[in-house]
Amino acid sequence: MFAHDRWYVVALSSEVTAAPLGRTVLGENVVLYRTTGGRPVALADRCPHRRFPLSLGRLDGDLLVCGYHGFTFDCEGTCVAVPGQEQIPGRARVRSYPLVEQGVWTWIWMGDPEQPDHGRLPVTPWLVDGADWRVVTSMAPLQARYMLLIDNLLDLSHETYLHAGYIGTPEVAATPIETDVDEEAGIVRVNRHMQDVECPPFYSRSTGIEGRIDRWQDIEYFPPGYYLLHSRIAPCGVAPSADGTDAEAFHMKISYGITPSTATSTYDFWAVSRDFAFDDAEISDHLYKLNETVVQQDVNALNVLEKRVSRDPDPFELNIKIDRGGLAARRMVERIVQSEG
Amino acid sequence: MFAHDRWYVVALSSEVTAAPLGRTVLGENVVLYRTTGGRPVALADRCPHRRFPLSLGRLDGDLLVCGYHGFTFDCEGTCVAVPGQEQIPGRARVRSYPLVEQGVWTWIWMGDPEQPDHGRLPVTPWLVDGADWRVVTSMAPLQARYMLLIDNLLDLSHETYLHAGYIGTPEVAATPIETDVDEEAGIVRVNRHMQDVECPPFYSRSTGIEGRIDRWQDIEYFPPGYYLLHSRIAPCGVAPSADGTDAEAFHMKISYGITPSTATSTYDFWAVSRDFAFDDAEISDHLYKLNETVVQQDVNALNVLEKRVSRDPDPFELNIKIDRGGLAARRMVERIVQSEG
Amino acid sequence: MFAHDRWYVVALSSEVTAAPLGRTVLGENVVLYRTTGGRPVALADRCPHRRFPLSLGRLDGDLLVCGYHGFTFDCEGTCVAVPGQEQIPGRARVRSYPLVEQGVWTWIWMGDPEQPDHGRLPVTPWLVDGADWRVVTSMAPLQARYMLLIDNLLDLSHETYLHAGYIGTPEVAATPIETDVDEEAGIVRVNRHMQDVECPPFYSRSTGIEGRIDRWQDIEYFPPGYYLLHSRIAPCGVAPSADGTDAEAFHMKISYGITPSTATSTYDFWAVSRDFAFDDAEISDHLYKLNETVVQQDVNALNVLEKRVSRDPDPFELNIKIDRGGLAARRMVERIVQSEG
Repeated sequence: MFAHDRWYVVALSSEVTAAPLGRTVLGENVVLYRTTGGRPVALADRCPHRRFPLSLGRLDGDLLVCGYHGFTFDCEGTCVAVPGQEQIPGRARVRSYPLVEQGVWTWIWMGDPEQPDHGRLPVTPWLVDGADWRVVTSMAPLQARYMLLIDNLLDLSHETYLHAGYIGTPEVAATPIETDVDEEAGIVRVNRHMQDVECPPFYSRSTGIEGRIDRWQDIEYFPPGYYLLHSRIAPCGVAPSADGTDAEAFHMKISYGITPSTATSTYDFWAVSRDFAFDDAEISDHLYKLNETVVQQDVNALNVLEKRVSRDPDPFELNIKIDRGGLAARRMVERIVQSEG
Repeated sequence: MFAHDRWYVVALSSEVTAAPLGRTVLGENVVLYRTTGGRPVALADRCPHRRFPLSLGRLDGDLLVCGYHGFTFDCEGTCVAVPGQEQIPGRARVRSYPLVEQGVWTWIWMGDPEQPDHGRLPVTPWLVDGADWRVVTSMAPLQARYMLLIDNLLDLSHETYLHAGYIGTPEVAATPIETDVDEEAGIVRVNRHMQDVECPPFYSRSTGIEGRIDRWQDIEYFPPGYYLLHSRIAPCGVAPSADGTDAEAFHMKISYGITPSTATSTYDFWAVSRDFAFDDAEISDHLYKLNETVVQQDVNALNVLEKRVSRDPDPFELNIKIDRGGLAARRMVERIVQSEG
Repeated sequence: MFAHDRWYVVALSSEVTAAPLGRTVLGENVVLYRTTGGRPVALADRCPHRRFPLSLGRLDGDLLVCGYHGFTFDCEGTCVAVPGQEQIPGRARVRSYPLVEQGVWTWIWMGDPEQPDHGRLPVTPWLVDGADWRVVTSMAPLQARYMLLIDNLLDLSHETYLHAGYIGTPEVAATPIETDVDEEAGIVRVNRHMQDVECPPFYSRSTGIEGRIDRWQDIEYFPPGYYLLHSRIAPCGVAPSADGTDAEAFHMKISYGITPSTATSTYDFWAVSRDFAFDDAEISDHLYKLNETVVQQDVNALNVLEKRVSRDPDPFELNIKIDRGGLAARRMVERIVQSEG
């Protein structure tokens, strides 16, 4: 059901603080906190004594103290104190999870903690809110299986209907897509290049473009947990230069961290990165609120869909051309899960 | 569990509008809407593409557009548009359900859509709010299996206890009943004729009768989904004339549409029809509020009972004379269900 | 899962009135009420007619009338009236449960109603709010299996963490315990005698002691349903006299009635009895509010723990010395349950 030997977004980096934070990833309970030195830590969120969630405890320096009987653990998950006796039993330890903090998101490795595969970690320089990119980000809890979110994101024709008035216009659903499945690299690409179309509110207000636009949506999906939409907005007819520069266009990278929580719930992390209007807090605020609304529209729809799907004895679904990307994504995820045995 | 080759009340006719309405009948999700020409339409509430409820979509003229990716259906359930391509796949269609609108209630046929049996549709002229009858109606959702509502309605001795101060008086429980089970016609009749009894608030205020009354409760139950209570209220000792006229008495017909939603939930449609005080809106209002309260008393009790029954390993129930009607009703419903195989 | 041939606290005595009260004990639905003569009565909370809860009915003198169809029962559970007929069917009766009222708590016998074993009823003179003891008491519903509450109460080292600032101080967890398991008498004793320690707010305000104290916690657990904490607070170094008198110390008895409701819910009855400051209503109020808060802290923690335990496929728990009492308690309860077959 889940691919374990992978990295998933486990938290906004700003959520990892001295106050322990509980998350459930691939059905495993994890507690996150940040040391006084600034290092993020992830441990199994289950005291070995009486199974109490360590996330309900508190930090004592860099040590995590269980809120029930005071069992105390260091950053590697080794127990260093128990109540009423000096001797620490040898089995008193909890699993520790490898973490990598990359800008606004912190990633967790859910496979063998001794062998995190850093080659599988998505490279995301646009998630560093700094000199090159301005980023807004948040997370919405979703009461639906993660495959429904993948389906949703790989087929943006839904923008026309679910997100009308925000990012959807009639042209999105009407414009055919190009799908490219790179089995070797393990990437699904879906491109939709719209010429001379309406500019939806999401972009008109943030770019200041008036009138009609060329609008490119180039999706890259890195199974199972990372989705990247390269969005290019330009005045009609303006193409990138032969040397690759594209000064008249506006670029955004819209990232989704798709993190399965349980069999029927998911963390829907999102970030909008832009390479313009760096110091305009109003545009940051606008993009934040608008994308938050758009994500919530998806969440509301998928929460309903999960209830339907989970009770529906008939698995039949009708596939058309727009579903090529989503179907390829499903197959890749299933293949990864199966390959783990 | 359910009888399918039957008509059920699916909606108040006033609920069927240009805004799609979702209902679950016999466990099947149905979407209802009304065409610009005024015709009620019922389709399966499941887009064949990704199973999204069509009831969350919107009408485009008389076409129903899915709110997720825009698959579009006509009133017969045939798909007429899909996103990103011209060609419509042959399997893109949803089931259509036969409907009949009879006055304030709209009925749905849950059997083979090609062969609705109109002979099985209850004849209900008193549900037309017009020259002959004045009708108030509503629906209460019930979190209980439909058999509990049938049990409830077939044994009105509960009025004395559950509805004391509304329609119940001590004489209801105390007066013996006559039960007539017409196996051939498939009707259960339960009559209770009370002479010289107290007049409960439900009737005293609406009829204006002062003092004691004769009160007849003549039930006809048409399994599985329609229940009709002929209520006659008259001054003490006043009988119908030999020619059938009954000018000094007040008549009401109290209808219940018992529509199973899921295994443990039911739509409790009700209507109170009267043949007097046609233009007295205050009496309409009084009867509406009072019956709404009475129905809610039943709903509250049956919601509790469902929880008990569903967890009770002991099926034992003690039957007495007042249960003859209810037991006959149970048997008839079970026989219909079994006859469908 | 449950020990039946035992007494359990079923209600605060003040809860048993002329208004029927429904409780679920060991999964059985029970209705409680008090006769006009003051006798508490417990019957099965299920009308034999249509399974409606009798606790939703009302009293007619000392008779309990079902709120659905009016079946009426006397204090022994014998049906004395049914609607619409004179004859009472022989099987129209409900089970009656033996009760004993001991001061502020009323106990129920859940075994064979013909053979209540009064020798198994805990002796609790300190639960009589009278000449010898002043008592405050209440009950908190717990959404957790009763074994989690037993675990909790047998290991008071959790006071330091879960109840810091109320009854917990660092010394509780730090002080070793003595555990005594009396298999023959069926009692688990856990003693923790703290010398020269901090006085927590619970005791400082109620006793008026200033400065450091000797604090004894002597637990006696009578499986499965009664737990008694003998608490002794004295100025540092003050010991009981050789003749047993102990005039300078303050004594409290803190009782818990642990009553399983369902497999995953429990009634957490508690009482604090003191032998000082009899007429000080402010101290009563203080102890009530403080213990109510402490109990709610336990309830909140155990509600969380129940969710974790019920979903945790891994039963592993690490035991240390402080767990000796809790483990002995578990074994005794399991032995009692098994002995009943």
